Amino acid sequence: MKWLRYTHAGIEGFGTLDGETIHVHTGELFDTPTPTGTTLRLDEVCLGLPCRVGKVLALWNNFRAAAEKNGWAPPTEPLYFLKSPNSLAPHGSVTPAVAPEIGRVAFEGELAVVIGRRAHRVSLAQAPDHILGYTCADDVTAIELLHRDPAFPQWTRAKGFDGFGVLGPVIETSLDLSTAMLRTRVGGRERQAYPLADMFFPPAELVARISQDLPLEPGDVILCGTSLGVLPMKPGSEVEVTIDGLGTLVHRYG
Amino acid sequence: MKWLRYTHAGIEGFGTLDGETIHVHTGELFDTPTPTGTTLRLDEVCLGLPCRVGKVLALWNNFRAAAEKNGWAPPTEPLYFLKSPNSLAPHGSVTPAVAPEIGRVAFEGELAVVIGRRAHRVSLAQAPDHILGYTCADDVTAIELLHRDPAFPQWTRAKGFDGFGVLGPVIETSLDLSTAMLRTRVGGRERQAYPLADMFFPPAELVARISQDLPLEPGDVILCGTSLGVLPMKPGSEVEVTIDGLGTLVHRYG
Repeated sequence: MKWLRYTHAGIEGFGTLDGETIHVHTGELFDTPTPTGTTLRLDEVCLGLPCRVGKVLALWNNFRAAAEKNGWAPPTEPLYFLKSPNSLAPHGSVTPAVAPEIGRVAFEGELAVVIGRRAHRVSLAQAPDHILGYTCADDVTAIELLHRDPAFPQWTRAKGFDGFGVLGPVIETSLDLSTAMLRTRVGGRERQAYPLADMFFPPAELVARISQDLPLEPGDVILCGTSLGVLPMKPGSEVEVTIDGLGTLVHRYG
Repeated sequence: MKWLRYTHAGIEGFGTLDGETIHVHTGELFDTPTPTGTTLRLDEVCLGLPCRVGKVLALWNNFRAAAEKNGWAPPTEPLYFLKSPNSLAPHGSVTPAVAPEIGRVAFEGELAVVIGRRAHRVSLAQAPDHILGYTCADDVTAIELLHRDPAFPQWTRAKGFDGFGVLGPVIETSLDLSTAMLRTRVGGRERQAYPLADMFFPPAELVARISQDLPLEPGDVILCGTSLGVLPMKPGSEVEVTIDGLGTLVHRYG
């Protein structure tokens, strides 16, 4: 099932997507959403973030292929940071170009896990029940800023500019992580194509482990990290992140 | 003027503190708060966080004395990370002890800046108008976890456990930063005593510079970093952070 949020005639709403048809729901996505019987066509709404998003945690060094190529040791635990709320932006958004002194900006196509039920100290076996579903993400990064200070990597800042956390277009509740590929195209050219099965810590393990540290709430999002193929973008670049069985997130940088 | 939030007879409210008397207000703290004429005694309420807190940014390496002692180069720009929302806790709270495998936990007495008006790309001259006031903070840190992974300092995680971001007791709108000292006592013993004037980037400069990167919203908080004297705490430790002219934040660890 695919969940989305939209604006139609100035009113925000949410529902499920079936082909090009939105089945409007009422109530809360995370608490007994109920179909109203009304439908809308996908082409008559503006997509918003796919749910009301809480905190956004993002992983570093979570793909074997990237670790091998970059000579990073396999992590013994999930290594994560927080993205700032202002960085969030939906499908179809334009990420403002940063000031020249910030340096180059790269795309990072990623799988995003959306929490559906509060998870605090849950086991690996319980973790899947706390995941609502998955969406596509571009974890945009100011790559030169990140290590500009030799003593302090600036993860929060380099990943926290307006529009640097693009999520969407929908939340897919059922995704085959063992076979799905993630592909990132920039200006129509494929730059990333990697299997989601290559993670050191797959989604359920991320939820179980991170929930030992801090509570994950409905609407919280975990970005699973990226793999090979990250490159800087020219202003004006259109980025498309596609996950098999989920859809394609499109946004523009600059 | 001192602002606070409280719970009284199960109802949340806010107001100003004058001696031991709370002047109850209605409306929004950040938008024309209005006195109701009702008063409460400080000893008949439970203090909450001193305002509705948004995102919490925290500084590393912002005090000259600490940089000199630790051999850190003076920063050329504010170096900051985000604290997780679940870490927030008010005056009087008990921070749960972390699991033994997380390692030792330290206090960090700090000045916290509370944003009162949205600040996005404001100048140094404009910045003070966007600050509502100041409160005390304990930026509790799992110091062994922080550098446990040699490739990725875990700022978010080491600072993000429940109750690791203690704020209060009040927001003081007028504070003399040129003379005020911050003192941290643990178990009644003074462990930190440093002048707030020793910052590389004082509050107005932090607001101006950080607002170039991302918008600061009413209720957002900037923790200004700590100075000398940080030490691990034993479970059961009572921590008191006092800022001259502001008050004393008290909480317990474990």
